[in-house]
Amino acid sequence: MRVGIVGGGQLARMLALAAYPLGLRCTVLDPAPDACAGQVAELLQGAYDDPACLSQLAQRVDRVTFDFENVPASTARALVRHIPVFPPPLALEIAQDRLAEKNLFRELGIATPPFSAVDTLAELQAAADTTGLPAILKTRRFGYDGKGQRLLKAAADITPAWDDLAGDIPLILEGFVPFEQEVSILALQDAQGHTAFYPLVRNIHRQGVLRWSHAPCQDSGLQEQARDYATRVLQRLDYIGLLAIEFFVVNGRLLANEMAPRVHNSGHWTIEGAATSQFENHLRAGFGFPLGSTDTIGCSAMVNCLGEMADRPTVLAVADAHYHDYGKPPRPGRKVGHFTLRASDPLTLNQRLASLLPEDLADTLLPPDD
Amino acid sequence: MRVGIVGGGQLARMLALAAYPLGLRCTVLDPAPDACAGQVAELLQGAYDDPACLSQLAQRVDRVTFDFENVPASTARALVRHIPVFPPPLALEIAQDRLAEKNLFRELGIATPPFSAVDTLAELQAAADTTGLPAILKTRRFGYDGKGQRLLKAAADITPAWDDLAGDIPLILEGFVPFEQEVSILALQDAQGHTAFYPLVRNIHRQGVLRWSHAPCQDSGLQEQARDYATRVLQRLDYIGLLAIEFFVVNGRLLANEMAPRVHNSGHWTIEGAATSQFENHLRAGFGFPLGSTDTIGCSAMVNCLGEMADRPTVLAVADAHYHDYGKPPRPGRKVGHFTLRASDPLTLNQRLASLLPEDLADTLLPPDD
Repeated sequence: MRVGIVGGGQLARMLALAAYPLGLRCTVLDPAPDACAGQVAELLQGAYDDPACLSQLAQRVDRVTFDFENVPASTARALVRHIPVFPPPLALEIAQDRLAEKNLFRELGIATPPFSAVDTLAELQAAADTTGLPAILKTRRFGYDGKGQRLLKAAADITPAWDDLAGDIPLILEGFVPFEQEVSILALQDAQGHTAFYPLVRNIHRQGVLRWSHAPCQDSGLQEQARDYATRVLQRLDYIGLLAIEFFVVNGRLLANEMAPRVHNSGHWTIEGAATSQFENHLRAGFGFPLGSTDTIGCSAMVNCLGEMADRPTVLAVADAHYHDYGKPPRPGRKVGHFTLRASDPLTLNQRLASLLPEDLADTLLPPDD
Repeated sequence: MRVGIVGGGQLARMLALAAYPLGLRCTVLDPAPDACAGQVAELLQGAYDDPACLSQLAQRVDRVTFDFENVPASTARALVRHIPVFPPPLALEIAQDRLAEKNLFRELGIATPPFSAVDTLAELQAAADTTGLPAILKTRRFGYDGKGQRLLKAAADITPAWDDLAGDIPLILEGFVPFEQEVSILALQDAQGHTAFYPLVRNIHRQGVLRWSHAPCQDSGLQEQARDYATRVLQRLDYIGLLAIEFFVVNGRLLANEMAPRVHNSGHWTIEGAATSQFENHLRAGFGFPLGSTDTIGCSAMVNCLGEMADRPTVLAVADAHYHDYGKPPRPGRKVGHFTLRASDPLTLNQRLASLLPEDLADTLLPPDD
């Protein structure tokens, strides 16, 4: 059997590496001739909205999944007419629109920060009054890693922010919440409705970009709440595959920030840190194989390499360190790889991490008894 | 950087899957256009002794290793003139000849079963007198998985065995030892002389073919002896990479049976069952990266799939089961894949294993307190 992946970045690459042992071969569709997943999988070079390419992909493979959520909805809809697609196109469409996503959370009783749709300067001014400042003005569509966002600290920031983003309407204003931490849950559902959940992950972002993750999150009191929220989304969307939901923790409560209908950067630690990786489990769910155990193996820290890879011998000299080079040329800010450290206890993990964490993140190490 | 692998079978395939995350790309040389490693790596199709192919391989890659030990010695010697090769060609040459191998063990003070070189019927008769019967007549070269072997139970078997194998001289007669169990050690050395050792593995063979392995072997009293023996071989050969040595356990002592200068079937459990897999560590050693931890994660059983794959949903339904399909068409007796079960303790492992172990192996399950 063969899995098709729309998008040929690092997520597709790690999916392909997980696919082979399961007896699945892999074809990725990407417009770039040097898409990094093409190093480990068959590459079909072409545009995501080229009907001939989509038809060719559907003929080559047995099921299709996605490397990123901003695949044109029309692409997913076109594919699903010919071949099983996971997760369902509806999940992609909702995740592509911050307003639809927040409205879904609200409809399902999942707490969120305050938010308002914004299509005009007048609406922005009204929304700022309702939400209060600080708040963040965001494009509703195609934003990622902090792109397409403006922080509004005071009333004077409203017009400049509008001027910056007015060309990208529709927009959304989201109240800035003074969170204690950011966490995410990775949830799975298969076609029979079986579910599985990895433990909550603590995520540390800078300028909207994930820098490192720590699993399991030590505030396990939130796990049940996160599972419950994720289950509502899985069920509502007849979801198949892996779903990530990111939350803010505010006053010890979870507020849903956004969801990603795909394998997720905050789940890369599962390659070594869980009995079954998120990549394998996404494929197991999509192909109807039994879901694998999500039990953790000790505790793990996953650190993104931005711009260039961390020094390989330095990382590999640390006990139980695992290096993941995505095979991408260096470029400022680009996610070119990650490494994962594993340990039997948080104290040892912190010691291993301290020597490898970039300096600007030193203050994000939590005391292990926190 | 790029690693070249001579031979494109499952060992090359699993090496390639371990190579990508390290930032290494992979080219395999194999005469078969459908070599299974070619699904996950660049395939250079050609004969192992074709100078043009070897030259092309040496130009494409930074270092070369091997998928199997029966690569012509001339191939390894030709490559090493142009490019770093690991393990050293001398290790291949010795492992290709059962007599040279046994003589090396003897020279290094490593106990072996009794053995004698046999090139004539008269020598065989004399060897049978010295060694005693039962004994096993084996081809010295190119035997594997029990091929090229005849068991001599009584004097009447001598002439028929000679008739069967006389066309394949030189031969060796090895005394049959009534072993309690068969075990192997996986040992590593890098260019700086750093070494690392996985714990002893218990191996269960049938008709000379490995059927399943259990790690760590519960008779840990033998670990120090095995490490010491392996260290002698690593040092004597200026070895770089992973070396496997198989032993018989007789009266609680280790007798060396044979060695394999490559990643080894009895080490496949390390993909999930150890902090660093044998495949990754072989590459780390060969490329001069720090060796990874060989600590075990719980205990593991690795079961070979011979002829055809085990039923995928059945295996994947077992907790902490890991499926490894080599992408090879089924054929009677062929190693087409394996699966590994992992558990936190031997009792749980045995329970998981009992439901998946082929019926003819049911009697090979050890009581967990054995």
